[in-house]
Amino acid sequence: MFKKTLLAVSMTAACLASASSLAAEKVDLLIKNATVLTMDQDKTVYDNGLVAVRDNKIFAVTDGSDLAEYKAKQTIDADGDIVMPGLINTHTHVSMTVFRSMADDVPDRLHRYIFPLEKKLVSRDMVRIGAQLGNVEMVKGGVTTYADMYYFEDEVAKTVDQIGMRAVLGETVIKFPVADAANAEEGIMYAVNFIEEYKNHPRITPAFAPHAPYTNTTETLQTITKLSLQYDVPVMIHLAESKRENQVIAERSGGKSPVEYMAQIGALTPNLVGAHVINVSDSDIELLKKHDVGIAHNMSANIKSAKGVSPALKMFDDGLRIGLGTDGPMSGNTISTIDEFNQVAKVHKLVNKDRAAMPPIKVIEMATMGAARALHMEDKIGSLETGKLADIIVVDTKAPNMVPVYNPYSALVYSAYAANVKHTIVDGKVLMQDRNMLTVDETAIRNEALKFADTVRKTVVESGEIVQ
Amino acid sequence: MFKKTLLAVSMTAACLASASSLAAEKVDLLIKNATVLTMDQDKTVYDNGLVAVRDNKIFAVTDGSDLAEYKAKQTIDADGDIVMPGLINTHTHVSMTVFRSMADDVPDRLHRYIFPLEKKLVSRDMVRIGAQLGNVEMVKGGVTTYADMYYFEDEVAKTVDQIGMRAVLGETVIKFPVADAANAEEGIMYAVNFIEEYKNHPRITPAFAPHAPYTNTTETLQTITKLSLQYDVPVMIHLAESKRENQVIAERSGGKSPVEYMAQIGALTPNLVGAHVINVSDSDIELLKKHDVGIAHNMSANIKSAKGVSPALKMFDDGLRIGLGTDGPMSGNTISTIDEFNQVAKVHKLVNKDRAAMPPIKVIEMATMGAARALHMEDKIGSLETGKLADIIVVDTKAPNMVPVYNPYSALVYSAYAANVKHTIVDGKVLMQDRNMLTVDETAIRNEALKFADTVRKTVVESGEIVQ
Repeated sequence: MFKKTLLAVSMTAACLASASSLAAEKVDLLIKNATVLTMDQDKTVYDNGLVAVRDNKIFAVTDGSDLAEYKAKQTIDADGDIVMPGLINTHTHVSMTVFRSMADDVPDRLHRYIFPLEKKLVSRDMVRIGAQLGNVEMVKGGVTTYADMYYFEDEVAKTVDQIGMRAVLGETVIKFPVADAANAEEGIMYAVNFIEEYKNHPRITPAFAPHAPYTNTTETLQTITKLSLQYDVPVMIHLAESKRENQVIAERSGGKSPVEYMAQIGALTPNLVGAHVINVSDSDIELLKKHDVGIAHNMSANIKSAKGVSPALKMFDDGLRIGLGTDGPMSGNTISTIDEFNQVAKVHKLVNKDRAAMPPIKVIEMATMGAARALHMEDKIGSLETGKLADIIVVDTKAPNMVPVYNPYSALVYSAYAANVKHTIVDGKVLMQDRNMLTVDETAIRNEALKFADTVRKTVVESGEIVQ
Repeated sequence: MFKKTLLAVSMTAACLASASSLAAEKVDLLIKNATVLTMDQDKTVYDNGLVAVRDNKIFAVTDGSDLAEYKAKQTIDADGDIVMPGLINTHTHVSMTVFRSMADDVPDRLHRYIFPLEKKLVSRDMVRIGAQLGNVEMVKGGVTTYADMYYFEDEVAKTVDQIGMRAVLGETVIKFPVADAANAEEGIMYAVNFIEEYKNHPRITPAFAPHAPYTNTTETLQTITKLSLQYDVPVMIHLAESKRENQVIAERSGGKSPVEYMAQIGALTPNLVGAHVINVSDSDIELLKKHDVGIAHNMSANIKSAKGVSPALKMFDDGLRIGLGTDGPMSGNTISTIDEFNQVAKVHKLVNKDRAAMPPIKVIEMATMGAARALHMEDKIGSLETGKLADIIVVDTKAPNMVPVYNPYSALVYSAYAANVKHTIVDGKVLMQDRNMLTVDETAIRNEALKFADTVRKTVVESGEIVQ
C-alpha cells in the first residue's frame, strides 16, 4: 500500500515535470509579481502580472496566470512594485553635467555665459566625462533612451555603447566657431562622418543637430534637411524657444514665426524633432502636425528660465508626436525624466486653471509612448508589448514617499523621484539592479567628474568670469 | 642614540596628549569635513567646517581649523557633503499619508471627497498609522520639525515623541461633526485637554487648529484666539486659500477679505500661522505683517489644485514671517519640504517672468529660518548657531544628480530630492544614519500602513465611492 502510494506520487511528479517541460517557454529574464503598466493602446494594467524577455526583446506581457509556463535564466520578483516601459528623455545635453549648478539664474545666460564657457572648456575629455556622469544619473533615474544635442557626439556614443543605453545622438551644427568645428560647413562634415560611423549601431541612432533656426543660415538648414532625408536620420533642433528667436526669424523671413519659416524653407519633415516649442500659435501647431514633426517638452527648464509654458497639453490632445525631455543639466538641472513628472502635471493645471488638466496618465504617456513617437521610435520602444525591445524599469512602491498606491499613475507623477527606480533594463540587459550600476564603475566616473569640476573652478569660477 | 630618540618621541607624544586634553572640548557629536550652510544672519558658509553638539544643543559651528580641540563621543565625517539646519515643514496633515494617490484630480475635492472620506475612516488608529508613516518619510527627507493640523493630535504626539522629531501639533476645530468632536465646542475642549497634556513637552508644541475662517463661526474663532493667548500656544488655520472662502467671508463680513475679517474680529495675532495665503491684496499683506502673523507657503499643493500662486516672494521680501510647507499627502503629495524647492524657485520665476526671481538662497531661507520665523521658533531652530537646538541634516553631494556642486544652494534647490538626505539629527540625536531609521521600525510601520490601505480600498475604492 505504502509503496503504491509512493509510486503514484512519483509518477504524478514525473508527469507534471514532463508536462511542464513540454510547455515551458525558455526566456532570459522574467519579472513576476508586478504591477505592470504596459502603456499599450488600451493602457492595460496587470495587478499581479509578468514580463518575459528573450534576447533583447519582450517575449510576453501577461496577467501572470501563466507564470508556471516560463523557465527563465534570471528572475526578478517585483513583489508588487511598478513595472513599466523605460523612460525616454527626448532632449538633453548630457555632457553639460560637469557645469551643473553654475551661474543658474543670470539673465541672457546662453549668450553671456554658456557659449563663452563652452568655447573655453568643451573638449573630447569634457564631453566623455560629462556623458559618463549623466548616463549614470539617467540609468539610476529610469531613463533607458535619450536624445542628445552637443559636440563630439562620437565621444557620447562611446559612453552609450559602453553603459548599454539606447540613444539618439545629434551632432551640433552652428554658424560660429565651436570646439569641434570652425563653422557650420565643418559641423555638417563632422555630423556626416559620425552618421557614417554609427548608422548601423544596434542601440545608437546618429543624427544632425542644427542648434536653432536663428543660429544657422537658411542654406545650412536646407542642406541638413536634404542630408537627413538622404541618410534617413533625425534632425534635432531648438525651436520656438525664445522671444529673441521669434524676432530674429521674423526679421529674416518677413514676419514669419520660426515654425512657418521652417515650413517655408522645406525644413519641417517627419525626421525633425523640435525641442521646447513654446512660442507657437494654433496655426504653427497645425503645421507641425501636418509635417509629422516630433516635439520635446521640457517644462522644468522652460519655467526655470522664465521662458513660459509650452502649449504641450494642446499638442498632446491634438495628436502630435510629443514627449517629455529634461533639457541639459545647466538648464533643468537634473536629467531623469521622472523629475519632470510632478512639474508637468502641476504647471499645466496652474496655467489652465483646472485641477483635472494634465492627469497623471497623460504625463506617463508623454514619458513613454509619446516620447517614443516624438523620436519616431514607437514601433520599437515606449510600451511593454510582445516584440518590442526590452527597455523596462521597476519602480519601488515601498519607499515611504510611495506608500500606499491606490493609483499607480498618480503615485509615479505626484510622489516618485529618481531614487525610487529600483532596476533598469535596456535591450534585455540589466544595467542597474537594486540601485547598483552593473556595466560601469560609478565611483570612478564620479571621481573623474569631480576632478574635471576642479579644472572648471580654476578656469572660470575663481577668475570671476562666472558669477555665482 | 636609538633610545634617546625613542624617549624624545615618547615625551613629545605625552606632551601633545596633555596639551590636547587640556584644550579638549568634550562634545557628544562632531560633524567634520562639512560644507556648512549655517543660514545665520550673514549666510555664513564654511567649505570645510565643523558642527559640534553637546546634549541637545549646538555647541560650536566653525571653519574647521579648531577640529583638534574637540573630543567627541560620536563623529560623522561629512566628506565634503552639505551640512545644514534641519528642514521645517510649516504645514501638513501627516496622518493623511494613508489616503495618498487617491482621487487626486477631481473637482471640488475637499467637500465632495475628502470630508466624507474622513467621516468614514478617520480614527485613532488611522491617525497613528498615517503619522508614523509620514514621520518616517519626513525624517528620511530631512524634515526635523513639522506643523500639523488634524484630528486626534494626541495620537500624532505619541508618534512624534517616539520617533524623536520636533512638531507643532494643532488639534482641528470645525463647525460640523468630525471623528473626534461633534461640533466646534467639543473640538475646542479636545484641543484644550491636548494642550494641557503636552504644554511642557520638550519637543512638542500643542496648538489650536481652527480649520478655516469659513468653516468656523466668528464666535469660535474669537474663543480660540482668547484661549491661545491665555495658554500662549499657536493657532494654525487655512487662510485665503480658495475663491469660495473669499466669497463666504465677504458675505459674512460685508465685503471684507478673509484677512481683513480676521483682523476685524481680533483673530490676527502673533500666535497665528496662516496656511496658503493665496488670495491676498497688498493691504492684506500689510495687515499680516502688522500683526506679526506667520505664513506657510505650499506651492506644490496650490498649483496641483489650480488654486493659484501665493505672492510668497513679495511677502518674503517685505519681511513677513514666511516658510515652506508641503500641505497634506492628499494634496502635495509628498511631505518632505525638499520636494518643494524646485517648484518654489521655478514657478515664482515663471509668474514673475524673471529667471532671477526667487534665487535658491531665498528658497533655502524659507525652508529653514523663514519657516522657523513662521512658527515663531527662530530663537530655537532654523540655523546652525551656537546655543540653538541641534536639528541638523547632512545632504549627500555624491549622488549622480548632485555632482558637481559649484553652488550649494543651487544644488539643493535645482538638483536634490528627498533621498539625497543622508543623515537626520533632531535635538542632538541621530534619527536617520546612512538612510537607516534608528528610532523606529520602518518595515513594521510600512506594513501597518499597507494593511490599513487595504481597509480603505474595501471601504471606499471598491464600492466606487472614490473615483480614481
